[in-house]
Amino acid sequence: MAKFPFSAIVGQDEMKQALLIAAVDPSIGGVMVFGDRGTGKSTAARALASLLPPITAHENCPYGGSKEDALAYPDVCGGGPLRKRAVPFVDLPLGATEDRVIGSLDLEKALRSGEKGFEPGLLAKAHRGFLYIDEINLLEDHLVDLLLDVAASGENVVEREGLSVRHPAKFVLIGSGNPEEGELRPQLLDRFGLSVEVRTPEDIETRVSIMRLVAANERDPDAFTAQWAGEDEKILKQIARGKAKLAKLETGEDILIDAAHLCMAVGADGLRGELTLMRAARAFAALEGARKVKREHLIAVAPSALRHRLRRDVLDETGSTVRITRALQELFG
Amino acid sequence: MAKFPFSAIVGQDEMKQALLIAAVDPSIGGVMVFGDRGTGKSTAARALASLLPPITAHENCPYGGSKEDALAYPDVCGGGPLRKRAVPFVDLPLGATEDRVIGSLDLEKALRSGEKGFEPGLLAKAHRGFLYIDEINLLEDHLVDLLLDVAASGENVVEREGLSVRHPAKFVLIGSGNPEEGELRPQLLDRFGLSVEVRTPEDIETRVSIMRLVAANERDPDAFTAQWAGEDEKILKQIARGKAKLAKLETGEDILIDAAHLCMAVGADGLRGELTLMRAARAFAALEGARKVKREHLIAVAPSALRHRLRRDVLDETGSTVRITRALQELFG
Amino acid sequence: MAKFPFSAIVGQDEMKQALLIAAVDPSIGGVMVFGDRGTGKSTAARALASLLPPITAHENCPYGGSKEDALAYPDVCGGGPLRKRAVPFVDLPLGATEDRVIGSLDLEKALRSGEKGFEPGLLAKAHRGFLYIDEINLLEDHLVDLLLDVAASGENVVEREGLSVRHPAKFVLIGSGNPEEGELRPQLLDRFGLSVEVRTPEDIETRVSIMRLVAANERDPDAFTAQWAGEDEKILKQIARGKAKLAKLETGEDILIDAAHLCMAVGADGLRGELTLMRAARAFAALEGARKVKREHLIAVAPSALRHRLRRDVLDETGSTVRITRALQELFG
Amino acid sequence: MAKFPFSAIVGQDEMKQALLIAAVDPSIGGVMVFGDRGTGKSTAARALASLLPPITAHENCPYGGSKEDALAYPDVCGGGPLRKRAVPFVDLPLGATEDRVIGSLDLEKALRSGEKGFEPGLLAKAHRGFLYIDEINLLEDHLVDLLLDVAASGENVVEREGLSVRHPAKFVLIGSGNPEEGELRPQLLDRFGLSVEVRTPEDIETRVSIMRLVAANERDPDAFTAQWAGEDEKILKQIARGKAKLAKLETGEDILIDAAHLCMAVGADGLRGELTLMRAARAFAALEGARKVKREHLIAVAPSALRHRLRRDVLDETGSTVRITRALQELFG
Amino acid sequence: MAKFPFSAIVGQDEMKQALLIAAVDPSIGGVMVFGDRGTGKSTAARALASLLPPITAHENCPYGGSKEDALAYPDVCGGGPLRKRAVPFVDLPLGATEDRVIGSLDLEKALRSGEKGFEPGLLAKAHRGFLYIDEINLLEDHLVDLLLDVAASGENVVEREGLSVRHPAKFVLIGSGNPEEGELRPQLLDRFGLSVEVRTPEDIETRVSIMRLVAANERDPDAFTAQWAGEDEKILKQIARGKAKLAKLETGEDILIDAAHLCMAVGADGLRGELTLMRAARAFAALEGARKVKREHLIAVAPSALRHRLRRDVLDETGSTVRITRALQELFG
Amino acid sequence: MAKFPFSAIVGQDEMKQALLIAAVDPSIGGVMVFGDRGTGKSTAARALASLLPPITAHENCPYGGSKEDALAYPDVCGGGPLRKRAVPFVDLPLGATEDRVIGSLDLEKALRSGEKGFEPGLLAKAHRGFLYIDEINLLEDHLVDLLLDVAASGENVVEREGLSVRHPAKFVLIGSGNPEEGELRPQLLDRFGLSVEVRTPEDIETRVSIMRLVAANERDPDAFTAQWAGEDEKILKQIARGKAKLAKLETGEDILIDAAHLCMAVGADGLRGELTLMRAARAFAALEGARKVKREHLIAVAPSALRHRLRRDVLDETGSTVRITRALQELFG
Repeated sequence: MAKFPFSAIVGQDEMKQALLIAAVDPSIGGVMVFGDRGTGKSTAARALASLLPPITAHENCPYGGSKEDALAYPDVCGGGPLRKRAVPFVDLPLGATEDRVIGSLDLEKALRSGEKGFEPGLLAKAHRGFLYIDEINLLEDHLVDLLLDVAASGENVVEREGLSVRHPAKFVLIGSGNPEEGELRPQLLDRFGLSVEVRTPEDIETRVSIMRLVAANERDPDAFTAQWAGEDEKILKQIARGKAKLAKLETGEDILIDAAHLCMAVGADGLRGELTLMRAARAFAALEGARKVKREHLIAVAPSALRHRLRRDVLDETGSTVRITRALQELFG
Repeated sequence: MAKFPFSAIVGQDEMKQALLIAAVDPSIGGVMVFGDRGTGKSTAARALASLLPPITAHENCPYGGSKEDALAYPDVCGGGPLRKRAVPFVDLPLGATEDRVIGSLDLEKALRSGEKGFEPGLLAKAHRGFLYIDEINLLEDHLVDLLLDVAASGENVVEREGLSVRHPAKFVLIGSGNPEEGELRPQLLDRFGLSVEVRTPEDIETRVSIMRLVAANERDPDAFTAQWAGEDEKILKQIARGKAKLAKLETGEDILIDAAHLCMAVGADGLRGELTLMRAARAFAALEGARKVKREHLIAVAPSALRHRLRRDVLDETGSTVRITRALQELFG
Repeated sequence: MAKFPFSAIVGQDEMKQALLIAAVDPSIGGVMVFGDRGTGKSTAARALASLLPPITAHENCPYGGSKEDALAYPDVCGGGPLRKRAVPFVDLPLGATEDRVIGSLDLEKALRSGEKGFEPGLLAKAHRGFLYIDEINLLEDHLVDLLLDVAASGENVVEREGLSVRHPAKFVLIGSGNPEEGELRPQLLDRFGLSVEVRTPEDIETRVSIMRLVAANERDPDAFTAQWAGEDEKILKQIARGKAKLAKLETGEDILIDAAHLCMAVGADGLRGELTLMRAARAFAALEGARKVKREHLIAVAPSALRHRLRRDVLDETGSTVRITRALQELFG
Repeated sequence: MAKFPFSAIVGQDEMKQALLIAAVDPSIGGVMVFGDRGTGKSTAARALASLLPPITAHENCPYGGSKEDALAYPDVCGGGPLRKRAVPFVDLPLGATEDRVIGSLDLEKALRSGEKGFEPGLLAKAHRGFLYIDEINLLEDHLVDLLLDVAASGENVVEREGLSVRHPAKFVLIGSGNPEEGELRPQLLDRFGLSVEVRTPEDIETRVSIMRLVAANERDPDAFTAQWAGEDEKILKQIARGKAKLAKLETGEDILIDAAHLCMAVGADGLRGELTLMRAARAFAALEGARKVKREHLIAVAPSALRHRLRRDVLDETGSTVRITRALQELFG
Repeated sequence: MAKFPFSAIVGQDEMKQALLIAAVDPSIGGVMVFGDRGTGKSTAARALASLLPPITAHENCPYGGSKEDALAYPDVCGGGPLRKRAVPFVDLPLGATEDRVIGSLDLEKALRSGEKGFEPGLLAKAHRGFLYIDEINLLEDHLVDLLLDVAASGENVVEREGLSVRHPAKFVLIGSGNPEEGELRPQLLDRFGLSVEVRTPEDIETRVSIMRLVAANERDPDAFTAQWAGEDEKILKQIARGKAKLAKLETGEDILIDAAHLCMAVGADGLRGELTLMRAARAFAALEGARKVKREHLIAVAPSALRHRLRRDVLDETGSTVRITRALQELFG
Repeated sequence: MAKFPFSAIVGQDEMKQALLIAAVDPSIGGVMVFGDRGTGKSTAARALASLLPPITAHENCPYGGSKEDALAYPDVCGGGPLRKRAVPFVDLPLGATEDRVIGSLDLEKALRSGEKGFEPGLLAKAHRGFLYIDEINLLEDHLVDLLLDVAASGENVVEREGLSVRHPAKFVLIGSGNPEEGELRPQLLDRFGLSVEVRTPEDIETRVSIMRLVAANERDPDAFTAQWAGEDEKILKQIARGKAKLAKLETGEDILIDAAHLCMAVGADGLRGELTLMRAARAFAALEGARKVKREHLIAVAPSALRHRLRRDVLDETGSTVRITRALQELFG
């Protein structure tokens, strides 16, 4: 798939909202995208990454580490002058071996000098950026678990082949899957911060306009990018403003009570539901430029934050989204 | 199977059309051929490859790279004077190991000098040519996925055994399979640009004429090739003209609307259907020497572009081809 | 999951009691935690570990060995001056290979000098601390068995790859699992000393207060830790006092008879039930500052000590906890 | 099984005919032998090989290459003076590893000099002779496929372990199998040129005469061989004459039409059926010393050429051989 | 499990009898212990081993070989002065690799000097002592078979990795298993000499007295051991006397007839039943200090010797022990 | 199992007859022994081997080669003076790896000198003796097939790890199995020359006499061996005489006809049945000192030669032995 400006993406509002939330607060824990094949799931994620401003990293650091990283992990960051780099976007290749994902023994060094060294893997490459996994349901469970662990802790702890290394690995994990091709275990789904659904648009007009935009982009990518640069710039500013706001944003007691009521009403196991709901509402409020988190922010993010955490209810066959919408309606009118 | 001139192939019109489209626009994304055993599926692909004029490549480039490749990938192309080479046609041997397909650590170099080098694989060999996979349904899914990824991006990104290499790998992927022997997953099928069906001819005359041509070719291959050289030359010119035309060809709004209507009518999931339909129609129009894409071009390529992307309809048991033909009839009369 | 003060954990009384008992008498044999996802099972264990005072260890000892360890295992402890270290908390990473868990041949040494050396694994790291295994039911049985063996004996005996090493490995094993995701074999469960159940709190107030505490901790972790330092200090003193008391505590004949009656009444196979019950009651009495073990101590620890050891009774479908409570009621009123 | 003169074999006419055809035209594509255990399937093949006159090969060529091979494959043929060798007969040992079949990295050379060399495998040994596979249905499909590929192309293309070698491997592939022990996939069967059926003789006289001949051979093999030398010599001359005739033999249009009619009548998928039928009829006519291919030659080879290519007909439960015989009867009376 | 004096073990009479018989005649072929979890199956075996007087072994012999061993296996015993060693008790760790059990190539030696040496395994360690396997039903069948082979022959024959070594390995094999967790194959069970059943005691008094003893042992192991030293000494003398008696003990014809009658009555396949019965009765008579084997000795050991060898009788659903007791009653009143 | 004189074996007449036949004519192709566990199946085979006179072998030949072997295989036999050796009896250890069975790369030599050498395996050890496989039905099919191949050809052809070696391996293959534990594939069974059934004796007298003999042997093996030396000597002479006679023994036409009639009557697939029947009858006649093969010899060996080769007859549920006995009765009265 070719590059595509984030602002030129037609529709897919829920996915775009989730990506922006994750950009503002990467600790939210990853975004899971469910949807038909061929709906450009990876295009949006890739577009967001290339929209973001470059990061500043130590030249010799294999992890693209910042000044803070160099202080926190002096052993693994090679240092050197600070240079700008594009925000990393790592597309996990199907069939990438576990050792390439988490890193492995540096065979070359071992053969040459008999010393054990660490060869950073894709988790290292993804630091400070995005890690995209297409058809995540085809990945082995233990690898998904591992990726979620690292995404949650922001650190990759390697214990294998006689190696014992830890390095920073802060990234937004984005997984995509087609629910018709087998689901992830509930245990794994629950560990994704947000989940969104994308569908093929059903009206001719949207479909033609997408074709027109794709054709325009294929004909002359540079001109197309230039044409949308202004819109992309606006989004970029919105993210920057959101990030700045987030730390100071207050969350009132009323919002916490709303969140608890909602989670109990829809039947979300455990407490991860309301903790994520709270964090997502805060990030969304920050994006919107609000001074405090309001119920409308909670309502806006509730489907993404809770959809994948509902306990199965054998008496209620309606889908997760419907159940959340109904509960929102009943509770908050 | 012996070599056979492309123009001497009897019948198989849909397959020949798909191959010509892929020759004009390799970004179309590969051709999947369904059909009975023994219908010479690989013969046509091989014939097309040996019909094409030689490519010009840097002598020391293990990828047969062009001048453009040498600029784009200075690290991996060995350079050297430009020489002519036959268009590569790689027949993926059954049981070829993954490391030979995507390339691997150069063991010899590692043993001799303790340095890690990259040993290019079959994807490197196929650059600027064709990669043919017989009985693709017998290949493991993740390998098919990998091949489709590379075919789509035109680049092989290797992340294994401590290697991190990217090299150009632009080729037309051609897969063949017998639907009776188990199908590809819909997710994989959808990623092929075009799909065609070949059948054993049912009339005596055709079968006898094929035997006669095969016998003639076996008796004296050189004479046979010489006899068909003129016809092959005409096809070669048609491809060259098509390629030249393609970039400038205009696609009207009406064609986009036609494409969207058709995809919704037949029930193609996602948007890949109409995007491919548009591209195939453009390439076909270019081949035909048309100045703009017309509805007749769309109609001509619709079965190849959509057949493998139809949503299963439990109420309508008719085959994919019939459903497309019927929709074409209803929409465009 | 971020760090969290032990005393700030809301609810989860049974789990906290079991952890404190294990802290007082690590020979109790590990704690198994059953519970919903997202109930912070690992948070409590981690909190307890970071609450404990640092240990004193020989600087060059790869096992963090004490003076006593250095005497008992002179071959494996490197000696050096005694230094303070944090109590180890090892979180077994999913996908950690068996050789990294139990230790393995030191490849570097073998390649460099041709000598066989031992590279300590995670069991060595966990010595004198905690080994936490999330979703232990996903681990292979033989690895669970091995971990329980080492936890029970306090020693890691390695017999593999031509190595024959034994080193101290005294740690509290804590496993967590969701009973809906497949159970451990009874044989394995029986070898855990205690088992506890944690559930999502069902009242709004508790849930809101948890959110409030988590939010406070996320906003300013240092302030939050400081705020709870006093409470944590109290718990620390309680543990220290319990440890000191334990050796001298007397267990009357009446308590032994109570334990035997209870185990026969609930139908616990084997004698491990009453032996653990006795040990847990002793540790709990010591924590409570009692001078002798009383029936109330036995009652308090009975569910944790016996819940996972009940013979299945086909005529009595009630859960383990209910059966124990009922038996306690009937026997001791 | 001991050696046995080809001409002393009692019965098994269809198998002997197929072997002679393959000896005259090895490009026919292998012979598949179906039959009961203990009917001496390998004896006939082995007998034919030892009957043939020695080949002339370059002494240092690991492939037993001829003068033509040395020219065509200068890199792999070691050259040296031309010497006579027995026609190779390779009996694929059960459990032979894939690397020994297709060849592999020369470990010795790699260890000694750090250079990659190719160690030829059984395919190299079989060049210019026979490759016999007992119980081919027990072999893994991909290995069968590989063997058929090489048998069809006459060349072994090795792409593994960083090796990229091609060497001549022209041999007659003979597979045997018991249909009761699981069949080959139709796709694989179709790629064998001919197939024959052997059965245990049902009359006392034949069985006694076989025992008598076997006993005589066991008692004094040299005398027995001498006794049948004359008969074997006749067969040898017949093959030599057939080979000489084959190139010039004319195949009339009528025979092609007959072949097409027959294949359509019996329902053979694809065109491989009539192409093989035509080739087998030509070879048989050459063996018979005929000047042109006649319908009688076509009829004589039809069962062997078509039996394993029939489409399953759910309404007609009769066996393949019966269906072909019936069709021959109906078409050609 | 802590050490425990053999004489302080409460109950478990059948198991203790079987262990004493094996101590007197190790050629009896191993003891299989069936029983609930937590009944201290390994405690008794371990107690017996630590009760026995030290053995005298050549200092440099990796097998702890006696003077006789050094003569019989001069190649593998390193010799050196004779020193006392504790009777070995090897507890087969779950997950011990096959190479560590039977011994393997000495990797260190191979890497350093390029020479092949043998690194003894656990079978070597167990020589002249006990090899205990907990949950033997979880071990792979071929490993159990191998252990039984070695236990039966008293010699470990190693044929692997190019090694060909034989060394003495005389030990008492003790396996334990829970019949609810899947049984051993009859073929393997039959090769154990004796089998015993242990159960959780069902009376309060026994259970309390066990707890009391365990508590006393945990409080002060040295005092506890000293307290039971006299009782252990008596058992030690009984074993020594039994061993001395065994060689000269006569077995009358009447006892052989009794054994044959009993085996036919209970339906034991093969002759291993009566051969073991005879040997066990002899060892038991020797332990008892009898001058000749009497029917009472036969009766005493019959359940242990036959229980695991009964043919399944579909019409008689009663357990093995009951069937043997009944047969003893009917035959010998 | 201890050594036991062949002549002291009670009962088991069919097995002893089969072993003697194989001793006289090792080309008969192996003996398969079916029977209950614990019936001393290996004792008889082992007894026969130790009864035979020593062989004369070249001292440096790793195959224990004779003068004839040294001439036939000059490359692999190390030569040296001729010395006497016991007849080899190789008991295939369960879990012996394939490379140890057929031989493998000599790792030591490879590591030391970088040269490839062959390390002979168990097949080499068994040359000129016996190869015993207990529970052959537990061996993997391909290994059984390989052993049968070598046993049939008398030669081990090694094609693996870059090795290409052939050495003599003439041995009598003896397999034992319990039919209740899963059968061998008919294809494999058919390749055994003879098959016999052994059962636990059902009369007290026999069982007591076996116990008495075993006890006597255990008490004083040397005295026991001496006591039976005379009987063993007689058998030895019988074998020697049989071998001498065999070559000259005439087999009349009438016997061949009898064999063919019998095989057709019982329904033996293929011709291996009557060929083996003829060979076994000849060997048996030679053992009996007869001048020509008679019908009584044929009858005596028919069950062993045919039992495992009968086609399943769905209408006749009677066992193989019964069907053969009945056919013998009907044909020859």
